[in-house]
Amino acid sequence: MSAVPRVALIGCGRIGQLHARNLAAMRDMCEFAAVADWNLEAAETAARLLDVPHATSASEDLLASPDVDAVIIASSTDTHARFIEIAARHGKDIFTEKPIALDIEATERALEAVADAGVRLQVGFQRRFDSGYIAAREGIEQGEIGNVEMIRDAMRDPSPPPPEYIRQSGGLYRDMAIHNFDSVRWLMGEDPVEIYTTASALVSEDIREAHDVDTSIVTMRFPSGAIASIENSRRSGFGYDVRTEIFGSTGALMVGEYRYTPIRRFSSAGVLEDHQYFFLERFRDAYRNEMVSFLTALINDTDVPVSGADGRAALVIAYAAEQSLREHRPIAIDMKEPDRARSEHHADSLPTS
Amino acid sequence: MSAVPRVALIGCGRIGQLHARNLAAMRDMCEFAAVADWNLEAAETAARLLDVPHATSASEDLLASPDVDAVIIASSTDTHARFIEIAARHGKDIFTEKPIALDIEATERALEAVADAGVRLQVGFQRRFDSGYIAAREGIEQGEIGNVEMIRDAMRDPSPPPPEYIRQSGGLYRDMAIHNFDSVRWLMGEDPVEIYTTASALVSEDIREAHDVDTSIVTMRFPSGAIASIENSRRSGFGYDVRTEIFGSTGALMVGEYRYTPIRRFSSAGVLEDHQYFFLERFRDAYRNEMVSFLTALINDTDVPVSGADGRAALVIAYAAEQSLREHRPIAIDMKEPDRARSEHHADSLPTS
Amino acid sequence: MSAVPRVALIGCGRIGQLHARNLAAMRDMCEFAAVADWNLEAAETAARLLDVPHATSASEDLLASPDVDAVIIASSTDTHARFIEIAARHGKDIFTEKPIALDIEATERALEAVADAGVRLQVGFQRRFDSGYIAAREGIEQGEIGNVEMIRDAMRDPSPPPPEYIRQSGGLYRDMAIHNFDSVRWLMGEDPVEIYTTASALVSEDIREAHDVDTSIVTMRFPSGAIASIENSRRSGFGYDVRTEIFGSTGALMVGEYRYTPIRRFSSAGVLEDHQYFFLERFRDAYRNEMVSFLTALINDTDVPVSGADGRAALVIAYAAEQSLREHRPIAIDMKEPDRARSEHHADSLPTS
Amino acid sequence: MSAVPRVALIGCGRIGQLHARNLAAMRDMCEFAAVADWNLEAAETAARLLDVPHATSASEDLLASPDVDAVIIASSTDTHARFIEIAARHGKDIFTEKPIALDIEATERALEAVADAGVRLQVGFQRRFDSGYIAAREGIEQGEIGNVEMIRDAMRDPSPPPPEYIRQSGGLYRDMAIHNFDSVRWLMGEDPVEIYTTASALVSEDIREAHDVDTSIVTMRFPSGAIASIENSRRSGFGYDVRTEIFGSTGALMVGEYRYTPIRRFSSAGVLEDHQYFFLERFRDAYRNEMVSFLTALINDTDVPVSGADGRAALVIAYAAEQSLREHRPIAIDMKEPDRARSEHHADSLPTS
Repeated sequence: MSAVPRVALIGCGRIGQLHARNLAAMRDMCEFAAVADWNLEAAETAARLLDVPHATSASEDLLASPDVDAVIIASSTDTHARFIEIAARHGKDIFTEKPIALDIEATERALEAVADAGVRLQVGFQRRFDSGYIAAREGIEQGEIGNVEMIRDAMRDPSPPPPEYIRQSGGLYRDMAIHNFDSVRWLMGEDPVEIYTTASALVSEDIREAHDVDTSIVTMRFPSGAIASIENSRRSGFGYDVRTEIFGSTGALMVGEYRYTPIRRFSSAGVLEDHQYFFLERFRDAYRNEMVSFLTALINDTDVPVSGADGRAALVIAYAAEQSLREHRPIAIDMKEPDRARSEHHADSLPTS
Repeated sequence: MSAVPRVALIGCGRIGQLHARNLAAMRDMCEFAAVADWNLEAAETAARLLDVPHATSASEDLLASPDVDAVIIASSTDTHARFIEIAARHGKDIFTEKPIALDIEATERALEAVADAGVRLQVGFQRRFDSGYIAAREGIEQGEIGNVEMIRDAMRDPSPPPPEYIRQSGGLYRDMAIHNFDSVRWLMGEDPVEIYTTASALVSEDIREAHDVDTSIVTMRFPSGAIASIENSRRSGFGYDVRTEIFGSTGALMVGEYRYTPIRRFSSAGVLEDHQYFFLERFRDAYRNEMVSFLTALINDTDVPVSGADGRAALVIAYAAEQSLREHRPIAIDMKEPDRARSEHHADSLPTS
Repeated sequence: MSAVPRVALIGCGRIGQLHARNLAAMRDMCEFAAVADWNLEAAETAARLLDVPHATSASEDLLASPDVDAVIIASSTDTHARFIEIAARHGKDIFTEKPIALDIEATERALEAVADAGVRLQVGFQRRFDSGYIAAREGIEQGEIGNVEMIRDAMRDPSPPPPEYIRQSGGLYRDMAIHNFDSVRWLMGEDPVEIYTTASALVSEDIREAHDVDTSIVTMRFPSGAIASIENSRRSGFGYDVRTEIFGSTGALMVGEYRYTPIRRFSSAGVLEDHQYFFLERFRDAYRNEMVSFLTALINDTDVPVSGADGRAALVIAYAAEQSLREHRPIAIDMKEPDRARSEHHADSLPTS
Repeated sequence: MSAVPRVALIGCGRIGQLHARNLAAMRDMCEFAAVADWNLEAAETAARLLDVPHATSASEDLLASPDVDAVIIASSTDTHARFIEIAARHGKDIFTEKPIALDIEATERALEAVADAGVRLQVGFQRRFDSGYIAAREGIEQGEIGNVEMIRDAMRDPSPPPPEYIRQSGGLYRDMAIHNFDSVRWLMGEDPVEIYTTASALVSEDIREAHDVDTSIVTMRFPSGAIASIENSRRSGFGYDVRTEIFGSTGALMVGEYRYTPIRRFSSAGVLEDHQYFFLERFRDAYRNEMVSFLTALINDTDVPVSGADGRAALVIAYAAEQSLREHRPIAIDMKEPDRARSEHHADSLPTS
């Protein structure tokens, strides 16, 4: 066995390629042994570009391979839970893109497999590895702003994903707001006790037809009395917008940055700055850092920083957000025994305008 | 009768003194004829400092005086409606600080008196005269950001007012959030149809004892499907914080400014800027501009820009926000026939932490 | 005699009107007794708008009037020195717009008259009353940035003044850079010992024909070894640009602000902010504050904060800047016995491009 | 021969390691074949971490090796010119860190060797590959700001280098300001015709003892009449400070960014942002981009973007800056036949404070 973990990447789509490039630059921390994609050509291209010795379309074989110590699961969402179970059964440490699954039952089955096997599972909530969010969390923990009283967490994509993505996404809450649910509970250090959702389908006909929403504000209450609002939109019109403001009894912390290129243009029209367009730009370093954290945990034989329980918790909150939208009332959240009714058509009850 | 309106100011407290200084610098637009305050000394001091010929403690006499064409009501909130009625009966044009009254009935009685007398009534929502908010409104109207889909409107005071103020304030919604209710409906160009309130009393024991809240998020839905969140806090810990973000289908407008003094300090600790401390700093120009608008309407014999109906509408929304908090559910808003139940003790139903 | 000084304003042009409006709002600190302008109509208009009892075209009579305690000289530059002498002879305290005069001899004669009469003379270097510059000066004095090692002081007008102004202005250094010369020596707390000028006439044919320059960098050396650069342009193309950066051994202070209205516009083109257009916007408060300082010194019988000696010192530096340009070499500055050769045609020796 | 160039890195110090990490992540553009360092251990460590097959302390052998197509020279400055000559003689394409050499003669000999061999030589002026500087250059070329009239280019290191570095650095102008000389002439699109230097040794006794300066303003004139100022300091006290402002007839472009982490801290003390500490942070992407450009030129058989002539030109300007300091007068620059007198002790003639 090698001194550093032998790592295989499953899934060579956009996010998989990102992880692949990061892994390729960490050869002191891992042996990047293999890539898999159901599309063999995609796997072979990635392997060639990044000097990875093995490429395959047989993802499940790779998950079971004795030549691999850890797997990075970046395949389509509907495969995550199954791949986690296979990898766990074969004793691999696992990094998986979020979400573990779109429903709580599948999530819990995957977590059981992980627990039974005693392997590590890290979930890809990359915000937790952004220098701004880390500084915010540390500031909170060190009492820099006193008691946290309110959080505002906003997330907007520049433009909506294609219809086929929307249909399989699990909806706005499990696909997109799940990042906010994770970061808010991580920053607060406690789970919400109540949630209320106000949302609309304004952005595209596709989203409305998929019974999904695209413009949403979720408010939450925490045991401490602190409250939070989460804003989501599938289209900003101007670029990727992720900003979090944390208000405490003695001050505030604001995380976010929109400027992309270090230039300002002064003319009689005013002063123009550019704007980051997408999450790949905003969280480029965070994606690298989360992989470093995962590999470090493997090398040092310690716990990974974002657990499967964190993945499940964010999904429980997403369910409650959908339930509030469906039932048009505030919903008390039971993190242990959540309401498990899935909103297949959670936009059906939207008020018609 | 003079060529410009003869103006009397009622109330020489903090906000009254601000209006007084502004009026004193507009001698080309008005004859600043008199000041009144129940505390005669306060009135006389203001008159002496600003070269106003007449000072009195008899506010009601002044409201009825034939030597006055228009009155600026900046006395305590509980006197507004009564003073409006007196002034209207005597044919004066009226500028009043917000709110007209703390309950809808008194508000409507005052508006009836104004309508019966055919005088003008302008309500002191000063944000509408801030260059940033004006630019935002114009940008929306000109389609600069397409259809408005979401608004986030935040307002935080640096520190809570004294207990006696809290007790007479009418509570967070009628006293403070009423500014947000006005600005959101003004920016949207439509009234909300539904509202939901999440709030806590975290800042001070005084506020909790007054059955009030101090930390609040209100979400709203509009007929167009657009949604809004309004954040309020009685204490920011860092200064006055008023920021509004308007998200449209093709872009966004963000109003707000925190920097106070044009200096940045660079050290090994980082880069430090200062912050505006209070609303008097942030809205200094807006307060002047609203007075210019009022006087201009009088001189040109046109309508005033913020009507009594606007004052009533913001109060109706405040009632609904309180009802939502009390009944712990989303409330449909009927602007014409609102629920008139007053929340004397609207924090009673707060979840205990 | 009144309890507060009786003040007369001489000159009702742009800057005179600004001072007039400020004085009119300070009736607790002065009796605004009279205005004068060679154009009687201008004086009468100002008096009517601001409720000033007396207007005249006889400026010199007003400077000598027994009914006036102090005068504000905001007439054309070529009258400053003469008016100062008259006012001083009649025992008036004097506030004068900069510069005292365009040549050192006339400046020194005016200062002698002031000294002989024992009256106060304050020169209108308004930057010294800007909150940013005040904070910078205080930061330096308190050792916030250690020893000052370098200053960069930039000043750009949005567009060049009309040809007739250029011809009578005294040239870029005595008319415009004189503000920088004052602020740099004030911030440094010492006078420069050497100066070198690099400049061009690029902006307009008028400026070139007036043998003036419009684009200039002046570098200076101070006794402490600290160095400074001063940038000037008669046209920025984007608005008024005044920024000063002070670099010390342990940090830096940067004074300046370009944003005018508190709104930011986000679109796919980027993020657009507006920009202040002119010095009246940037230094609105500073102009008011300098008048408050002047009146306060009169009321409290103390020294005024910007002396005639300061006015002379900035002019001496301007002479040296011109000499460097003319002689194309660094010039040692003797503040006490400066080279008094006037550059009537100081752009003659410019390298032709 | 491989399809992509086989590259060797010479020098595994700080900047060499940076290039090594970048090369290791570009395995689709090069075969990273070997590393050399006089310290064999340093070379072997780099090779192991980055999966490079060959490590050696015999740099000159590697420069001549038939198994290498191109070399990256990141060894100490005094070796650059000699290594370039060896590599050129053996037909290698060359990327070298700046400067080519500390004197013009050695520089010209190296350029002759390159020309004789017909190989490529790219000089490591990384600013030209920063997105902000690229945008500025493009804006100028596209006439976005009209005619360029003034440039201000500032560069400050957080703290001075160690004494041994200072002694071998070639002095402030050849070591540090050379970046500014390159970027200003690149942005202007023309070479300066005259230069004047004002400088001091204020930062450390070491620098003064090395007859060097540490605090400098250089002004320049260009054939178009445009003027420029260049500010340098060996110590900012707050972090790395590189900012460039370009003023044109219709607007301005400002390049620079100080914020490092996307967080702002609001407290009663004000608003605190952090600051980039060093050039490795500020120009991380630029260093990667310049390597991509070099490899792309090799792969596509095109010219490299920053030539040896550019390296020589910046050095000629540095000589003139030193001459101005030494002779205390403005110096006309002849780019073709420069004054070649080296300032071994260029701070000797500094005014004593």
